[in-house]
Amino acid sequence: MIAAQRPTIGVFDSGVGGLTVLRALLNRIPGANYLYFGDTARLPYGSKSAATVAHYAVGAVRYLQDQGAELLVIACNTATALALDEIKAAASVEVIGVVEPGAEAAAAASHKKKVVVIGTEATISSHAYQRALEVRKIAVREKACPLFVPLVEEGWVEHPVTEQVARIYLSEAFAGDAGDFNADVLVLGCTHYPLIKPLLRRVAPEHVAIVDSAESTAQEVARLLEDPSSSKNRELVAASMIKFFATDSAEKFRKMGSRFLGLPVEDVVHVDLKE
Amino acid sequence: MIAAQRPTIGVFDSGVGGLTVLRALLNRIPGANYLYFGDTARLPYGSKSAATVAHYAVGAVRYLQDQGAELLVIACNTATALALDEIKAAASVEVIGVVEPGAEAAAAASHKKKVVVIGTEATISSHAYQRALEVRKIAVREKACPLFVPLVEEGWVEHPVTEQVARIYLSEAFAGDAGDFNADVLVLGCTHYPLIKPLLRRVAPEHVAIVDSAESTAQEVARLLEDPSSSKNRELVAASMIKFFATDSAEKFRKMGSRFLGLPVEDVVHVDLKE
Repeated sequence: MIAAQRPTIGVFDSGVGGLTVLRALLNRIPGANYLYFGDTARLPYGSKSAATVAHYAVGAVRYLQDQGAELLVIACNTATALALDEIKAAASVEVIGVVEPGAEAAAAASHKKKVVVIGTEATISSHAYQRALEVRKIAVREKACPLFVPLVEEGWVEHPVTEQVARIYLSEAFAGDAGDFNADVLVLGCTHYPLIKPLLRRVAPEHVAIVDSAESTAQEVARLLEDPSSSKNRELVAASMIKFFATDSAEKFRKMGSRFLGLPVEDVVHVDLKE
Repeated sequence: MIAAQRPTIGVFDSGVGGLTVLRALLNRIPGANYLYFGDTARLPYGSKSAATVAHYAVGAVRYLQDQGAELLVIACNTATALALDEIKAAASVEVIGVVEPGAEAAAAASHKKKVVVIGTEATISSHAYQRALEVRKIAVREKACPLFVPLVEEGWVEHPVTEQVARIYLSEAFAGDAGDFNADVLVLGCTHYPLIKPLLRRVAPEHVAIVDSAESTAQEVARLLEDPSSSKNRELVAASMIKFFATDSAEKFRKMGSRFLGLPVEDVVHVDLKE
């Protein structure tokens, strides 16, 4: 089952957002094989309850395992925040979520030990980043930014409306009714947000470093594969195989996906998961 | 099974938006019993394919029938636009969607025989309103406004950002790259939009009449119930019974729902539909 040289990495997200994680993985680990699963028929997870998200995510990662995934990346902040334990319990291979790597990178980058985390309503309400940062002795302010995903999906990544929305959200996060919060790191706790990173860079206070969970997660996966003690350690060769699975229309996935991946998205298979 | 005096009306939507239709129904037909089904675990339908929407909608209306609905209102523009025929084929009671009543009201209101329709991406791409208006000899321009739903759900119903977004969308609809389109009616082809009707009233050209599909649909249901030739005709008594069913968290439905209904939402039952 296990390929001699190339690990097969399963990447899971509710939609196309996780393609920013796949893009980071391709940069770091170009020689792996990738299976990407977008649960597009049931997205967005951001406004759903923990039980619903766990139920959907477990079905999807089982599917990826059946397709040969030897390592699972939960490239979805909401699914990681709400359901990582359930996913790990259901999986028989190693599972990496986006929250721990993001929190670790943020903790390392913050001199003031104060971090702002932005994400969907569900990720923020779960306080998963807060817990992960507090065990690292970091003070946290969390801010839900529910309009960023639809703005990115509208394609308004460099648009005055998006900039105005970002000013409102970030000023509430860094100042706001609860008083000033003198953080020096901003964590992008949603895989859609890397697409508006340049805009957020302009709008965020200048001294603030931006930590992108997608990038941190790819680093963590690379570290794991390079670890000589890990069974996943392989001599990697270039040129990946990538397969895409989507629960909604393959055509829609192809169109929207290439914007997130920064590469043409081909070979999309429609999958109908029974609940 | 059929109550002697009160008809039981099943109202279906992907989420809470259809509560604006229920509100209009309660105003017109206060004496009926209502069963409202919000498929909140699988919303939004607006970005999904026709096959997925039909599959979900049929499951939901079957559930409403099992609960005793004697008349079904598809209070969801996307489900009506993409799946009304499938729903009618699967249902054993009368089914009313929101598109035909909205188109009928728009045709009656337009002196210039030119109408602009706004809605979600899926509703607009289906061209359901365009077809319904063209058979009535009305010229149509359709415009998808995917940011309105998240803006309404963020609670920004009277917010400068929403106004700016509305100016962009409506100026593209009434003028835009395709040239001026001198319509005198604007159809709100999404059940979330009644919440921003005052804002749209300010932003739309002054001479333009706004037709709200929710209101038109309630009128159509009332007409059907009052029709002496209809088996649904009943002597209605005041004080409705209303029950709510949601596929995602009942608590979340309760909170968001009261904003759309304009009344406290109580008695929400969580339902887990097998696919």
